[in-house]
Amino acid sequence: MLTHFDGKGQAHMVDVSGKPVTAREAVAEGRVVMAAGTLALVTDDRAAKGDVAGVARLAGIMAAKRTADLIPLCHPLPLTRIAIDIDPDPALPGLRVTATVRTGGQTGVEMEALTAVSVACLTIYDMLKAAQKDMVIDGIRLLRKEGGKSGLFEAAP
Amino acid sequence: MLTHFDGKGQAHMVDVSGKPVTAREAVAEGRVVMAAGTLALVTDDRAAKGDVAGVARLAGIMAAKRTADLIPLCHPLPLTRIAIDIDPDPALPGLRVTATVRTGGQTGVEMEALTAVSVACLTIYDMLKAAQKDMVIDGIRLLRKEGGKSGLFEAAP
Amino acid sequence: MLTHFDGKGQAHMVDVSGKPVTAREAVAEGRVVMAAGTLALVTDDRAAKGDVAGVARLAGIMAAKRTADLIPLCHPLPLTRIAIDIDPDPALPGLRVTATVRTGGQTGVEMEALTAVSVACLTIYDMLKAAQKDMVIDGIRLLRKEGGKSGLFEAAP
Amino acid sequence: MLTHFDGKGQAHMVDVSGKPVTAREAVAEGRVVMAAGTLALVTDDRAAKGDVAGVARLAGIMAAKRTADLIPLCHPLPLTRIAIDIDPDPALPGLRVTATVRTGGQTGVEMEALTAVSVACLTIYDMLKAAQKDMVIDGIRLLRKEGGKSGLFEAAP
Amino acid sequence: MLTHFDGKGQAHMVDVSGKPVTAREAVAEGRVVMAAGTLALVTDDRAAKGDVAGVARLAGIMAAKRTADLIPLCHPLPLTRIAIDIDPDPALPGLRVTATVRTGGQTGVEMEALTAVSVACLTIYDMLKAAQKDMVIDGIRLLRKEGGKSGLFEAAP
Amino acid sequence: MLTHFDGKGQAHMVDVSGKPVTAREAVAEGRVVMAAGTLALVTDDRAAKGDVAGVARLAGIMAAKRTADLIPLCHPLPLTRIAIDIDPDPALPGLRVTATVRTGGQTGVEMEALTAVSVACLTIYDMLKAAQKDMVIDGIRLLRKEGGKSGLFEAAP
Repeated sequence: MLTHFDGKGQAHMVDVSGKPVTAREAVAEGRVVMAAGTLALVTDDRAAKGDVAGVARLAGIMAAKRTADLIPLCHPLPLTRIAIDIDPDPALPGLRVTATVRTGGQTGVEMEALTAVSVACLTIYDMLKAAQKDMVIDGIRLLRKEGGKSGLFEAAP
Repeated sequence: MLTHFDGKGQAHMVDVSGKPVTAREAVAEGRVVMAAGTLALVTDDRAAKGDVAGVARLAGIMAAKRTADLIPLCHPLPLTRIAIDIDPDPALPGLRVTATVRTGGQTGVEMEALTAVSVACLTIYDMLKAAQKDMVIDGIRLLRKEGGKSGLFEAAP
Repeated sequence: MLTHFDGKGQAHMVDVSGKPVTAREAVAEGRVVMAAGTLALVTDDRAAKGDVAGVARLAGIMAAKRTADLIPLCHPLPLTRIAIDIDPDPALPGLRVTATVRTGGQTGVEMEALTAVSVACLTIYDMLKAAQKDMVIDGIRLLRKEGGKSGLFEAAP
Repeated sequence: MLTHFDGKGQAHMVDVSGKPVTAREAVAEGRVVMAAGTLALVTDDRAAKGDVAGVARLAGIMAAKRTADLIPLCHPLPLTRIAIDIDPDPALPGLRVTATVRTGGQTGVEMEALTAVSVACLTIYDMLKAAQKDMVIDGIRLLRKEGGKSGLFEAAP
Repeated sequence: MLTHFDGKGQAHMVDVSGKPVTAREAVAEGRVVMAAGTLALVTDDRAAKGDVAGVARLAGIMAAKRTADLIPLCHPLPLTRIAIDIDPDPALPGLRVTATVRTGGQTGVEMEALTAVSVACLTIYDMLKAAQKDMVIDGIRLLRKEGGKSGLFEAAP
Repeated sequence: MLTHFDGKGQAHMVDVSGKPVTAREAVAEGRVVMAAGTLALVTDDRAAKGDVAGVARLAGIMAAKRTADLIPLCHPLPLTRIAIDIDPDPALPGLRVTATVRTGGQTGVEMEALTAVSVACLTIYDMLKAAQKDMVIDGIRLLRKEGGKSGLFEAAP
């Protein structure tokens, strides 16, 4: 039932060699919840203080390309697009991170999108931890997945 | 105010060359929330179906060692211990992940512990996603940090 | 005569751009020879003592994906399957490791299968070296190769 | 009894934070066994045909530096010396590989020396596989280890 | 106007999923300028003193395969050929480095060729820096690019 | 005479185990020469168009941490500071890149500073190549080096 293990319960990188190459896209999200004062350090006068979102975006993009190196049973895939949005949300308060990844490959890019979000969130934590240590990374989940045999998945709102 | 940026707002890897080498430890946690039926796939007859926690634990340990490669402004540190616990929690339902990391170095290992937790959670998601796509990775936070000038930090319960 | 060097004796990554993309598979094997008492540490009551084979299998799978990073003149290939079997053999005594790798690519995956076997064997050595330092890694060889212009290769028994 | 697993049988990177930093050295060896005609491709007129040993030596040196990335439970160590000898042995026939690694660290460098030997052997196989597919990598073992609490180890001849 | 940034000025890895896979090649060059006496260390009696060009060539080949890991917004590409020439030029005096890279992919390999040249030049500097610290790496540029929608580019002589 | 090769002309990672750990710093520079119109794309209304220098700075910082992975005979070092300045120079016209790296280690950080500059320059090229393909990366050199037995080095102006 768990496809990443064979009949004897041994982990393997599952055979996708018979699957067709198709266009695939995945979108994932997550958030870093912090104090309002910490969020203000990010949003106030960004040019002078440093571009927290810019650094985190780069980290997420680079991490997406290393997903198969980090997640043991993930297939290496030729990614064709990676985009990351990072937006302040005063209602949390905190930062919301969304990643979109595309490939033309034999398996999906959910893990690449989720890895991009996770590493972007970790990078935000790293840059703000001198100001606040009890931030929380929350709500990392798949929003949407398209392409491949299983077709479209869209998360409940 | 944000130490990862200089006076002109430029990102840099901050100078720790004047800081003493001290014993440091950090503990972080996170959880993967899933349906009860998905959790049962992990906990029922683990030997036959495959050791989800074992694979995730390895992934987290290996990721901790690559933290400075993933988080742009992190210092490379000679890690001296990495341990990861992954426990089922029927009340979530889901799996709870805790990582403990030690070093003798000039800066702390919070990011290594948080990275280990994040990648272990992503690996759990990867192994179970064929059964359930709407799992959520939640509550990634620092539990405890010891050593260095800032001394002991313990998260509120 | 050595294809990895040009007419002046200079190493290069040989041009495969004119070769067709075909289904390819390679199987390789190796063994770690140890004392019977060391092998017993692996096979007796595996659940309580720790899953040596499980850790080594993961290490081999992850190493296969990094072959082109390790072997200087290897082409990067989109691997579509990696499976590793690790079985105790009391007659050695020791552990036998077999790796199977597949791709759809322009060149074969022998090196990926051999790298997976080698790193799985090294990982076994690492986990058991506190018990025995004079274990030997032996008999790493290609068992079978299929696909591509050179067709089927099968090792003598 | 297996130090890489805790009391519950869970893999961890064992705590070395209490161990002193000492000078450590390890020497490992291995061999690639091939047909006499294949060995002649390596030894005859090396300058014109290409320097197989030179490429393999580099690959082994670079792999030693990545040991903690490849072997899941290995500690990262600041290597201070890596040297690799590759010598033809007509009696095999084949090539003998020896690696010497040093560090000043809290744990030994056996795995670094064994990894250097393994990757050098794999690289030799890669460069010669167009000439002979049934070469065998054999006899990878620790020759000598010095430094640290367990003191001197020397392999039987 | 800068394709690596979106309409809001945010960096992204640009979408190439709609572009066809075509044969692509890029050639880049660079040089390390040094004193005549330093160049003599490289060219005199190369076999006895060590093969500076051989080591630099390998470093460049391996770096080309890691371009997408180093350059944040580069797409991962399945490289099908990497060749590097390193020639002494007494008129500089110094060493000239040329790299040729091919792929069948959706975007060009200029960055792979330029990265190969840069890392080969850095490696030359590293091996000769004990003899001369004020060498200069100069003239790294694209010589030629072929394939893809933008067609042929050739540098002015 | 070339320290990176032994008496037989074989490349090795030279033994630094007997050298003391001292504070070391290196500063390197380089430049990307381009058309005035290309430079204007970087300097005009940076916030709206995208932060070319910010992306290149991050790439250089991350590359410095991977120097020992890229340059075959470089020792791994625990970097304690990495800072990169990127400034427009209308007189070139182009961008000037300067990198400063510190460590407490047994060997110098020249290669880390030079690698940071090189990868930052390559990243600038990557982001601007859609506008101009014949930019040139020039003048990569060591400006200053301090610490260790060889003492202070300062480049001629």
